[in-house]
Amino acid sequence: MKHLLDMGHLDAMQIHHLLDLTDHMVEINQRPMPKVPALRGKTVVNLFFEDSTRTRTSFDTAARRLSADVMNFAVSSSSVNKGESLRDTIETITAMGVDAFVVRHASSGAPHQITQWTTASIVNAGDGWHQHPTQALLDCYTIRTRLNRTTGFDGLHIAIVGDIKHSRVARSDVQAFNALGARVTLVAPPTLLPPDISTWPVEVSHDLDGLIGSLDVLYLLRMQRERMRDALVPSLREYTTLYGLTPARAARLQEHALVMHPGPMNRGVEMAVDPAELPGSTVLHQVANGVAVRMAVLFELLGSGGEMTADTAADSPDPSQAGPRS
Amino acid sequence: MKHLLDMGHLDAMQIHHLLDLTDHMVEINQRPMPKVPALRGKTVVNLFFEDSTRTRTSFDTAARRLSADVMNFAVSSSSVNKGESLRDTIETITAMGVDAFVVRHASSGAPHQITQWTTASIVNAGDGWHQHPTQALLDCYTIRTRLNRTTGFDGLHIAIVGDIKHSRVARSDVQAFNALGARVTLVAPPTLLPPDISTWPVEVSHDLDGLIGSLDVLYLLRMQRERMRDALVPSLREYTTLYGLTPARAARLQEHALVMHPGPMNRGVEMAVDPAELPGSTVLHQVANGVAVRMAVLFELLGSGGEMTADTAADSPDPSQAGPRS
Amino acid sequence: MKHLLDMGHLDAMQIHHLLDLTDHMVEINQRPMPKVPALRGKTVVNLFFEDSTRTRTSFDTAARRLSADVMNFAVSSSSVNKGESLRDTIETITAMGVDAFVVRHASSGAPHQITQWTTASIVNAGDGWHQHPTQALLDCYTIRTRLNRTTGFDGLHIAIVGDIKHSRVARSDVQAFNALGARVTLVAPPTLLPPDISTWPVEVSHDLDGLIGSLDVLYLLRMQRERMRDALVPSLREYTTLYGLTPARAARLQEHALVMHPGPMNRGVEMAVDPAELPGSTVLHQVANGVAVRMAVLFELLGSGGEMTADTAADSPDPSQAGPRS
Repeated sequence: MKHLLDMGHLDAMQIHHLLDLTDHMVEINQRPMPKVPALRGKTVVNLFFEDSTRTRTSFDTAARRLSADVMNFAVSSSSVNKGESLRDTIETITAMGVDAFVVRHASSGAPHQITQWTTASIVNAGDGWHQHPTQALLDCYTIRTRLNRTTGFDGLHIAIVGDIKHSRVARSDVQAFNALGARVTLVAPPTLLPPDISTWPVEVSHDLDGLIGSLDVLYLLRMQRERMRDALVPSLREYTTLYGLTPARAARLQEHALVMHPGPMNRGVEMAVDPAELPGSTVLHQVANGVAVRMAVLFELLGSGGEMTADTAADSPDPSQAGPRS
Repeated sequence: MKHLLDMGHLDAMQIHHLLDLTDHMVEINQRPMPKVPALRGKTVVNLFFEDSTRTRTSFDTAARRLSADVMNFAVSSSSVNKGESLRDTIETITAMGVDAFVVRHASSGAPHQITQWTTASIVNAGDGWHQHPTQALLDCYTIRTRLNRTTGFDGLHIAIVGDIKHSRVARSDVQAFNALGARVTLVAPPTLLPPDISTWPVEVSHDLDGLIGSLDVLYLLRMQRERMRDALVPSLREYTTLYGLTPARAARLQEHALVMHPGPMNRGVEMAVDPAELPGSTVLHQVANGVAVRMAVLFELLGSGGEMTADTAADSPDPSQAGPRS
Repeated sequence: MKHLLDMGHLDAMQIHHLLDLTDHMVEINQRPMPKVPALRGKTVVNLFFEDSTRTRTSFDTAARRLSADVMNFAVSSSSVNKGESLRDTIETITAMGVDAFVVRHASSGAPHQITQWTTASIVNAGDGWHQHPTQALLDCYTIRTRLNRTTGFDGLHIAIVGDIKHSRVARSDVQAFNALGARVTLVAPPTLLPPDISTWPVEVSHDLDGLIGSLDVLYLLRMQRERMRDALVPSLREYTTLYGLTPARAARLQEHALVMHPGPMNRGVEMAVDPAELPGSTVLHQVANGVAVRMAVLFELLGSGGEMTADTAADSPDPSQAGPRS
């Protein structure tokens, strides 16, 4: 595995491998000193063309726990449109000696395009409406551990509710949940479904109340206020009435059902209850698992041979580091 | 000690303990390699809702010298007013695995409020007009070392001069100097004294010239230009005439007297002499001691058991870091 | 060597010494783990009064590969004009315990001025039109390695083409190339030559086509659009016609000739060919060599004794780090 661009590139076996590796990272994170030298000497560059403190910090924390060096690039959005300039930027940073770029970009496909211009690994940290693969992996890891589903999601019924059309999270999660064997239902107003929905491996519903009692996982997407301006949703209040997690709906969830959200939440809109009072809420587990999943991805891409052993993790002096004499 | 929020929470013994610990940190800072692994694997997040390069850099340096990882959060001031959103931010960063937040905030009490939302330690790096406890500790440490007062400040006369009303430094210093036994006199125009001044354990004077010859410590506060706009001070020139350290006043200081300032100075206003020419100036000692005091505070809050030994400070491989096998 | 301010301060022997040290750094950068502990415990502050992600990142990478701690200061350009305030800033950061400042400033001489206010080493990372010494060193290193000229540049003919007048790169390169024995010709429209050009150790030409076939090195400067506004150049198109590297000119280069550029390039202006298709292009080698040269400079200034040995480079526990007991 050289890059992580798209959940559609990973089959079930590869997903399981990354989730197994995540188990090791969770164990590292629970140590009194949650830091290993596995990627010492490697450099990870956060190249965020869209601001996201949350995702950037998660990758940052993951890289530091593996002892990689991290550099953050503040990219003015104005340079996004200059393809040539972006290429020169990538080639220049690559020449300085970079092992991975973590890329967030407003344009679908930008991380893939960047792979043409560098020898470094690319991790897609969200590109337009297209993909957000580490989000899908952390969501799978959260379901797997909370519902004890190490071997797959056969028989699980997962509903993803909200603005499917503009959501890279939904696209990535549908591919991942489907690959692991889950039944996926999308719940959204027709204006927030993509035109090609009939080709997705999902069922579609507009009736959250009709299926909420049968769900194993209720996945709420962030309802962005911009959608009101675009007249895709009449009002936030009506959205909440039809698609929000209200106390009445929360009461109808199965006892074991999970309530998931990629964050940040719009409290009072899609999340119209306090998740801290829901026993099935995984919101903060998703955040914690996000660090571990990103450690697993960075280690898979940058670690030597992909196998994590005492040698790669032990903080001992490396005899190969004997220095030059001048 | 879990948090450092307020000098009023510390008694003399606790202050002396932190200052003793600071002695060790000063010794570390004088080594050719001023870095120890005491907090390796710990993560400190600088959460500055008000910009302060000076204080942030001091905490940053302190954390790195103890080998902690540091993450800086640029917080737009607009998010200050959304209590719910701040809570979600704190809970999210906490879930990523953070050991301490260093918080600066324009609102008094914000650091205390944040303790309700996280398992991490909180260090108050300045909240509104309320408290700035590490400033008080570094000021105490500076007095203790410069005047050789290891056992307390009994018999010392300290004047704090300037805008007491809006000063978290004054509030914290008064508590600390008083706890250690000093006699404290506040010198300010009536408009720059707080309404509840009669309840403070201090004397009040408007006559700097009348007492300058008897002081052991002259502590000048920064005179902020905003106070002119608010008509609390008629002009900077008049302020300097009545309350500034002019060459004439400097000549009347006792030979051993210290001149202190929390920085940044307004040269020509409260500091109307060049401090580099005052033998008693501690301005740069305060800066240097600030790093050591913050190392002591972070070690006290995050170190294992609060005792600094060869084990916590030696940069040797840790056998507990043997890694997982996959 | 305490500071690196000006190429004019270095003689040929000192330049060769730094380039020899760069050879070691290139070797380190080619290791699987390109990181040595040579500057562990040292702190390097990037103080950039002008924004330059490219140069800052290069210094940042260099410092981290030597295990120094790096702090980045965002300096608002408004503070540039307050000499007193800049002095207090420098003294304050110095008091926190800093070993080197890497300074970029719009005013010629600012890095030199800063040396008066600190005990730390200063590296000039570009000051006004004056100097950019690490650029000159990386350019020399690139020529030396690409043309196999370890002992000097005797007999080499180097043309520097473009806006000489406003270029700190040209000023530094002329001094360095001249010190190493090269013959240097400057090619520019008369409006872009400095008034004191007759005192420089160079030849001057306005006829690029007349000499391009005899060059060993063609060094293109960045043509800044601001020069059009100032009416120093009639149009970018005319500039390209007279001074740009067009396909026709590229075809006339000698087979071994190098094409150099300090970056960022203006494609279609001075670089009117794709450098990726020029066998002699060194653009990305310059970037890679820039990291190694800056490692050499930081090591020379901050390393103990200036000699790089197994001891300074080996990542072994340091017995001097046994800690204090409290």
